[in-house]
Amino acid sequence: MELEGQKTVSSHGLADQSGVTSAQVRKDLSCFGNFGKRGLGYKVARLRKEIRLILGLNRRWRVALVGAGNIGSALFSYKEFRRQGFDFAAIFDVSPDRVGQRWRDLMILHIDRLKPETERLGLEMGVIAVPARSAQSVADRMVEAGMRGILNFAHRKIFVPPTVVLRTVNLAIELESLAFSIKALGGRGAKRGRRATAD
Amino acid sequence: MELEGQKTVSSHGLADQSGVTSAQVRKDLSCFGNFGKRGLGYKVARLRKEIRLILGLNRRWRVALVGAGNIGSALFSYKEFRRQGFDFAAIFDVSPDRVGQRWRDLMILHIDRLKPETERLGLEMGVIAVPARSAQSVADRMVEAGMRGILNFAHRKIFVPPTVVLRTVNLAIELESLAFSIKALGGRGAKRGRRATAD
Repeated sequence: MELEGQKTVSSHGLADQSGVTSAQVRKDLSCFGNFGKRGLGYKVARLRKEIRLILGLNRRWRVALVGAGNIGSALFSYKEFRRQGFDFAAIFDVSPDRVGQRWRDLMILHIDRLKPETERLGLEMGVIAVPARSAQSVADRMVEAGMRGILNFAHRKIFVPPTVVLRTVNLAIELESLAFSIKALGGRGAKRGRRATAD
Repeated sequence: MELEGQKTVSSHGLADQSGVTSAQVRKDLSCFGNFGKRGLGYKVARLRKEIRLILGLNRRWRVALVGAGNIGSALFSYKEFRRQGFDFAAIFDVSPDRVGQRWRDLMILHIDRLKPETERLGLEMGVIAVPARSAQSVADRMVEAGMRGILNFAHRKIFVPPTVVLRTVNLAIELESLAFSIKALGGRGAKRGRRATAD
């Protein structure tokens, strides 16, 4: 909304965009403070700033990318990360073909450099974009290096201690879930939820 | 497990891999049939086949990719999709630089060809990998073309009728969520969940 020049927004406007009710929008925001005025709505710029503060986005985060293949390359090029405050500050791989290559201003380093570089650069988050079989060992190295958050794109469940935050993006499961829902929706454009109410 | 040559698995083994309890594994699987034997566990190959059937993965799905940029290219190269039964059968874009290029055996087509190609090729799912400002119009075209499921990678909420299944992968929000959780975990490696139980 800010990019599109919108100055204020009502809770109804926020509800339309987010897919929840306007009452829920008001209730959720009121947990964090008093951001809006009855009848006037929310000032977009201020609300955005407050939400970024709540989310911990009022600062930049230094991120390590491990895995310089297709997915890693796409993530590295994804502009929205930088726009939201996330900077890839180091790239690691094991392949001799990739180590030593340059991606923009970064040289791809061997994974053995992960720990010293994490300390030197103050890396806090790691993105895992390696084949499934290597994912857990990369995660273990990230934990040992002192990273506090891991985003895993590998097709394998990984385990980290409770002091480290883990999120997993499984792209194949997204399509599998679509397939299941399409199947559950039934043949000829049946309304969603019908099966739940049919006998 | 099948790839690794494992023949049978217990509900405890499945629980360890999936992060739920063995009782939950048994309960969930029993909703769909009687797959395991007490004391013997589940046969990996049969269980995999049954689960694929439940999920609608006992067939191949023809998928359209719209957006031939960085994300689109990474998705197109992502081998796990094909392994799980999803084939990119057509690629669309609007950029004159991209339309007419070849990715493996597919020529990138202009988005105006979406509807006829969807009908001709029997495309059922669409993947949106375009800039945010174009995401809704691409979704509208996919719906009009008769697609039944959409996977949206654009950084914008889109709307589809209830007869179409939509899933959104917002890569930036994954990192934002990590940032929030790291912040919520607190400074020096405090145990997760501590805040919830502290007074």
